[in-house]
Amino acid sequence: MNDIVRFGISLPKGLLRNFDRLISIKGYANRSEAIRDLLREHLVEQEWEKGEKETVATISIVYDHRKRELANTLISLQHQHHPSILSVLHTHLDEHNCLEVAVVKGKPKKIKKIADKLISTKGVKFGKLTPATLGKDLN
Amino acid sequence: MNDIVRFGISLPKGLLRNFDRLISIKGYANRSEAIRDLLREHLVEQEWEKGEKETVATISIVYDHRKRELANTLISLQHQHHPSILSVLHTHLDEHNCLEVAVVKGKPKKIKKIADKLISTKGVKFGKLTPATLGKDLN
Amino acid sequence: MNDIVRFGISLPKGLLRNFDRLISIKGYANRSEAIRDLLREHLVEQEWEKGEKETVATISIVYDHRKRELANTLISLQHQHHPSILSVLHTHLDEHNCLEVAVVKGKPKKIKKIADKLISTKGVKFGKLTPATLGKDLN
Amino acid sequence: MNDIVRFGISLPKGLLRNFDRLISIKGYANRSEAIRDLLREHLVEQEWEKGEKETVATISIVYDHRKRELANTLISLQHQHHPSILSVLHTHLDEHNCLEVAVVKGKPKKIKKIADKLISTKGVKFGKLTPATLGKDLN
Repeated sequence: MNDIVRFGISLPKGLLRNFDRLISIKGYANRSEAIRDLLREHLVEQEWEKGEKETVATISIVYDHRKRELANTLISLQHQHHPSILSVLHTHLDEHNCLEVAVVKGKPKKIKKIADKLISTKGVKFGKLTPATLGKDLN
Repeated sequence: MNDIVRFGISLPKGLLRNFDRLISIKGYANRSEAIRDLLREHLVEQEWEKGEKETVATISIVYDHRKRELANTLISLQHQHHPSILSVLHTHLDEHNCLEVAVVKGKPKKIKKIADKLISTKGVKFGKLTPATLGKDLN
Repeated sequence: MNDIVRFGISLPKGLLRNFDRLISIKGYANRSEAIRDLLREHLVEQEWEKGEKETVATISIVYDHRKRELANTLISLQHQHHPSILSVLHTHLDEHNCLEVAVVKGKPKKIKKIADKLISTKGVKFGKLTPATLGKDLN
Repeated sequence: MNDIVRFGISLPKGLLRNFDRLISIKGYANRSEAIRDLLREHLVEQEWEKGEKETVATISIVYDHRKRELANTLISLQHQHHPSILSVLHTHLDEHNCLEVAVVKGKPKKIKKIADKLISTKGVKFGKLTPATLGKDLN
């Protein structure tokens, strides 16, 4: 079971006013929810900085699908790195450009290596690694 | 047709040596390919900073699928914002946690608003907006 | 006077455990202090994103002081942009390299322009703009 | 001596046009200068990610100088970490708020630790670590 713990924090009035304004802009239900999100984001950054535990990330790349060899290279790269690459979403942006998002699992170092390979492939116009989390330690 | 232009650049020897080392680590085929990637990344950042043109992004969220209302909220949020949300990839991380990646099209301001709404939804453990590009001006 | 307000927040047990670990690593005195810092950092990011209010930043540049014209260019640039540039700290890194940090006040757009000019000056090896805050609304 | 090497790179026409526009906005003298900056920024990021070599950074903190103990804590912290802290610039933002920038030398891990300590000190409203470079390997 995932117990909820309640405790008090103190903030200067001015800071709280600014915080409450932010909560309403962002659409959070309440202060606890907003603080939880800030904490989790910070913890995920730390996790990636330490780099010891298995985690998950998305790798987004934009490329021109007419470059036939590119598509093949990407597919074979993705298969070489199976089972690290869990799934891939392919979206058509216009007649020529595609956005492909891969969900990748592993230690940060290995995930970064796969991202480097995908992003450095000739024909890839843009690529970005987005560190995420398996969510287990954020309950 | 997308013509290729060739021109000369000059670098201090030491900087070039460091650059060549980086190219081999990252796996680029040659210097042109690596420089193209640096340029495109920089241009995409500028595009997002100005915020005038329609573009594309991925929004990644991690949540516990047992929170039934959450799943419904997410789906209805996504439908409210159709056609901005082009497609969604759902991945099971373990028995309880899911990673969902949405591909979103629109002006930066609107995309950020959708991301805020998704990420601030109660039950979402982690969320991140990854700015990308439609690729049209990066040929 | 800057009144302190106290209120309760609720966190899942696991998240709180992770948070407490982080507090001890980072050296915060207590949870309130750590949460205040997370809030302020987030608010400063928002302030810079909106870009409406006057704020402050540091611009750090590394360059080789032997390039005489460079030093002159930097000084004249800094005087052109007086009173935006409040003060400058010059540090010798080795026989040739210097690190110069300028504290700059103004609207985000103007500060970014000054940073672009300083960083793009021939001979500057490295430059970075660090958004900060005047601190007034963070009490 | 620091020799300059010249070599050719090839870019698609559209990408070059966008790049040239960026150069003129940012105020670079020519394409080589702009590419050198992009390369150096990327190399500095890599250096910090690997974390093996001694480097330099700035730590910026904003605080209210009326908190007397705070000023003392900061000074004693700074002396404890001498010789890592090379120099400090103190700027008055208004009657109460100060911005203090410290230039810190050492391995990334040690620099991050000093930054954590300074930023987590009670009374510090805002703090940021800005990774820079000693400039030696960027010639």
